[in-house]
Amino acid sequence: MAGLQVFGIPGLPEITGGSDLAGMIAAAASLAGTPLQDGDVVVVTSKIVSKAEGRVVELASVDVSPFARQYAEKWEKEPAVIELVLREARRVVRQVGPVLITETRQGFVCANSGVDQSSSGGHGLAVLLPEDPDASAARIRQGIRAHGHDVAVIVSDTFGRPWREAQTDIAIGIAGMNPVVSYIGQVDPHGHEFRVQALCVADELAGAAELVKGNLSRVPVAVIRGYHWEHDNEATMRLVIRESERDLFR
Amino acid sequence: MAGLQVFGIPGLPEITGGSDLAGMIAAAASLAGTPLQDGDVVVVTSKIVSKAEGRVVELASVDVSPFARQYAEKWEKEPAVIELVLREARRVVRQVGPVLITETRQGFVCANSGVDQSSSGGHGLAVLLPEDPDASAARIRQGIRAHGHDVAVIVSDTFGRPWREAQTDIAIGIAGMNPVVSYIGQVDPHGHEFRVQALCVADELAGAAELVKGNLSRVPVAVIRGYHWEHDNEATMRLVIRESERDLFR
Repeated sequence: MAGLQVFGIPGLPEITGGSDLAGMIAAAASLAGTPLQDGDVVVVTSKIVSKAEGRVVELASVDVSPFARQYAEKWEKEPAVIELVLREARRVVRQVGPVLITETRQGFVCANSGVDQSSSGGHGLAVLLPEDPDASAARIRQGIRAHGHDVAVIVSDTFGRPWREAQTDIAIGIAGMNPVVSYIGQVDPHGHEFRVQALCVADELAGAAELVKGNLSRVPVAVIRGYHWEHDNEATMRLVIRESERDLFR
Repeated sequence: MAGLQVFGIPGLPEITGGSDLAGMIAAAASLAGTPLQDGDVVVVTSKIVSKAEGRVVELASVDVSPFARQYAEKWEKEPAVIELVLREARRVVRQVGPVLITETRQGFVCANSGVDQSSSGGHGLAVLLPEDPDASAARIRQGIRAHGHDVAVIVSDTFGRPWREAQTDIAIGIAGMNPVVSYIGQVDPHGHEFRVQALCVADELAGAAELVKGNLSRVPVAVIRGYHWEHDNEATMRLVIRESERDLFR
């Protein structure tokens, strides 16, 4: 049966600042009886990337601005968390009641700048998105390469979207492969250009990985095996971030 | 290796009005050496569903309204296609230059009401979205059940999204399983509610299927095997359509 296998990598140890993620992933995969192989796509949940990179903030240490304090009090939010949400944003896209949709410094549009209190590993802490998720992915890819495996790496997060309820996992960082497969300029047998011009396979891969990770099962890494990708050492999710001028909903 | 397999079903014959899709899918799967199994999720591209249901329109037969004609001329579009786009819409969400984002009668927000000229199988034709994609999925599920297999069915389409370039496959119809897995009310070991409250696994399954279908390779059906879903005979994508009042971007 040609096709893809999608499976989680269980047994990762608790990730803390400075953890060697690449080494831990390669070791856990081997220990689980599914050693990494050349050509695998390794999808890593951004939370553990952030933790390994020390992007965890003690809320008590945060100086809260008057604006953040006022907003937090009005909507019964943690003032230090709101302050972090604003610091991680380069723009507030929507602020309606307790909902705060921002454009992050990395360029992603999401709720609360991706700041996460739930998975911080303890009260009084918040996890921020990786500073540069493409660079994070590249480091993990390099590290896994040092263990002898030529894989693509995607750093994923769970985002909402307009118009549709519930969230999906999407890609925020990538290394080794282009996030988009383009059909631009190709025509069907009848001479029509394809309605679909480019597919963001990175997001589809991240979503497929979520199906085996689950958000409760605490399997933060998954592998997609059998997906054909071309090497691209310049790969970046910036290709997928739509510029404001081309965006009808910002 | 626990996990998922994702594979396409090659060898489907050309689909036309009245085709027995369920029977064709079951037969093609068997012929390909990968017969359907209980518990499979079968993801069917909406185009072939539309064709089987006769949702193909001869452009020459369409009465074009003055508004559609004016807009089509201004932006060098086919007037009959614009007319169909408007008829399939219950609301225009954005109309900026040649880009027309609508809310379809089914409730989806997408470009051009999902009207597709590229894959119509000939010049002078356009394919519309299925009238009721949940009902389409339910019919295919019933038909496959009659062949002895208890599967979930997703009808998928390729949609764009705000803020991000390129498109992904998402679910527009579903049968047999709930499209959303909810974590609402559950707390992590530290007592925090999960930031992620509900995942639209139907969209993630549709995206995973796209990875093996490809938009050019003309494999309009894929199977996801090994994904655990609970039976839900009331399943509907209406759960995922956000109501206008809850939507910040419409």
